[in-house]
Amino acid sequence: MATITENIVETKLVQVFSASDPLHMDCGERLSPVTVAYETYGELNAAADNAILVCHALTGSAHAAGLSTDDPKSEGWWDSFIGEGKTLDARKYFVICSNFLGGCYGTTGSVTSDPKNGKPYGLRFPQMTVRDMVRVEKKLTDFLGVKQLRTVVGGSLGGMQALEWGVMYPDSVRTIIPIATASQHSPWGIGLNDIARQAIMNDPAWQEGDYYHSGQPERGLSLARQIAMISYRSDASFLDRFHRERISSNGYTAKTRFEVKNLFQIESYLRYQGKKLVDRFDANTYIYISRAMDLHDIAYERGDLAEVLAAIKIPTLCVGINTDVLYPVHEQKRLASQLVRSTYREINSPFGHDAFLIEYGQLGKFVREFLRDYADKG
Amino acid sequence: MATITENIVETKLVQVFSASDPLHMDCGERLSPVTVAYETYGELNAAADNAILVCHALTGSAHAAGLSTDDPKSEGWWDSFIGEGKTLDARKYFVICSNFLGGCYGTTGSVTSDPKNGKPYGLRFPQMTVRDMVRVEKKLTDFLGVKQLRTVVGGSLGGMQALEWGVMYPDSVRTIIPIATASQHSPWGIGLNDIARQAIMNDPAWQEGDYYHSGQPERGLSLARQIAMISYRSDASFLDRFHRERISSNGYTAKTRFEVKNLFQIESYLRYQGKKLVDRFDANTYIYISRAMDLHDIAYERGDLAEVLAAIKIPTLCVGINTDVLYPVHEQKRLASQLVRSTYREINSPFGHDAFLIEYGQLGKFVREFLRDYADKG
Repeated sequence: MATITENIVETKLVQVFSASDPLHMDCGERLSPVTVAYETYGELNAAADNAILVCHALTGSAHAAGLSTDDPKSEGWWDSFIGEGKTLDARKYFVICSNFLGGCYGTTGSVTSDPKNGKPYGLRFPQMTVRDMVRVEKKLTDFLGVKQLRTVVGGSLGGMQALEWGVMYPDSVRTIIPIATASQHSPWGIGLNDIARQAIMNDPAWQEGDYYHSGQPERGLSLARQIAMISYRSDASFLDRFHRERISSNGYTAKTRFEVKNLFQIESYLRYQGKKLVDRFDANTYIYISRAMDLHDIAYERGDLAEVLAAIKIPTLCVGINTDVLYPVHEQKRLASQLVRSTYREINSPFGHDAFLIEYGQLGKFVREFLRDYADKG
Repeated sequence: MATITENIVETKLVQVFSASDPLHMDCGERLSPVTVAYETYGELNAAADNAILVCHALTGSAHAAGLSTDDPKSEGWWDSFIGEGKTLDARKYFVICSNFLGGCYGTTGSVTSDPKNGKPYGLRFPQMTVRDMVRVEKKLTDFLGVKQLRTVVGGSLGGMQALEWGVMYPDSVRTIIPIATASQHSPWGIGLNDIARQAIMNDPAWQEGDYYHSGQPERGLSLARQIAMISYRSDASFLDRFHRERISSNGYTAKTRFEVKNLFQIESYLRYQGKKLVDRFDANTYIYISRAMDLHDIAYERGDLAEVLAAIKIPTLCVGINTDVLYPVHEQKRLASQLVRSTYREINSPFGHDAFLIEYGQLGKFVREFLRDYADKG
């Protein structure tokens, strides 16, 4: 039998909100139509209770597993974690992943044409929140016929969505698994995001967000990505990988060895990461999504943080990463301590925040045990 | 008797290299003239052996203590640490601080007029290294008649200079005190610096470094500073100070509460810090100095790092800061362990890397004890 990764998985589209039934957003806007791009792996069982929702992070997409083309490099962003025989086993679970509201991978967002004038929304798109994303995800799981989700799982911004599921739709989800995330986005995280947005907005090619015909602000978006990359990794991982190596091993003359163009490997790596994002992502979308992260506050307009978290009665697996500087373990531990039925597990890794996309051995064990003990019991 | 901080301290200038005796730089260039801006506090004793050299960090100046004008806000950057009755007691020591080579506070650097054409050097200024800075500092202490320095002390880039003093002029310095620094600048630090430089160079006002008549790249330099600020503080200090507060306490309507202009306090703070630097610092200088930090490698062209450090035989006080993410304590401890006669002390502070400019109680105690036990003994 072919495994998921040997099959090409199609990203599907479905309209979940329409003019007669618009999305009521936190900002007060009513948005329609709203189309969602999603993928599924495995089959929904007869009881409609074996579904798992996977939520992606800032620059992710619905393409979490399998191949999107016949290129073996087109595998999904969490392919090592999702599929037949893997942690989220597609023989057992019906795994769903959708591009969140405001994304640029098929779901309605700032790059989508505004039905009023046929032009991209751009900065006229209403600022979505994590809660708005979750409202759209709930509509999608309803459309797919899911009775109750076994779990909602995600890292970083994905974990913020998992937490909101626990507050907003506790009857529709048996457990949640927030990984390396926050109940309230920290000032440090907000600061980093704002600096990244400034990098984009400082680029003259950004043109106040109206660059759709002239090409996007490549230097600004690249710099935004590089700023973020610094916080996604640990200083130890950079040291192990790059040391103080230079790009060229030709040596340096007295005249050239100190020239800026004789980059260190770390500089070249960051610039390469910046370029890679420019080739696959949209600048205004980056602005919107990073702002949605900043606005994330599980207690906003709900009262006291401790009380809001204590009201989540479903089992929760909180996962921290020992070297994460963006969402440090002390935040993950505090979150776990404020939840009523929580399990805390910690990934030991040199890779910092990105470890949830790397350390599948540890993460898989934590998640499999938690699903077995809590989610699969019904 | 008036204390130093009640007196106005004058920054003096002295030419230390000339056409007939140029500075031989690491990059192979010969630079002349080289003028140094410096301040001194206290008096050199008859034995000429009570001097202490203070080295400043990236955006610092020679003005370390006292007032520069009759404005009480014009006090030096380490005024709480240097002066009569303070840790570096001006009644006992002859304290020297100079703007390093390549700075923009009086010492020859990229803003200086090139004698060849009378225009600012700009990007034609040769890339200096920390070793070049120390060569200039040595000339200055010779000029001032210092026989042997009691210590060379500095944090961050200042600590890099202290370490180089230990290697380059071991007979001219009794002890060194490198604080929150590195024996080799880390890839993480290089990455952050390169991103900051890109922020400057992406600004069209930078004009390939030739902005002297049109005004400097304010947005780029501001962004560079904000990127650095993120690494100078800890997430805990930002949380304690700013929480998730907004600038306006007027509340937000559904329409406006998610607008980018409704900034969080942390965003406003970072932008303010950026603006403050723009008003007092030069963009090309930022590029040069940050590159000098990246090039800092105590072992470069000297052999094995461990051997180079083990060859420093003078007593060294290494100071780490428990929340420093830029120069983490594990680096400070390793540095101390590689030195032959080292004392390691750790500042306990929520303020991250900047704690060496804040925690004078702890730092003062460590330094006073070390000076008493090692430097003052002769």
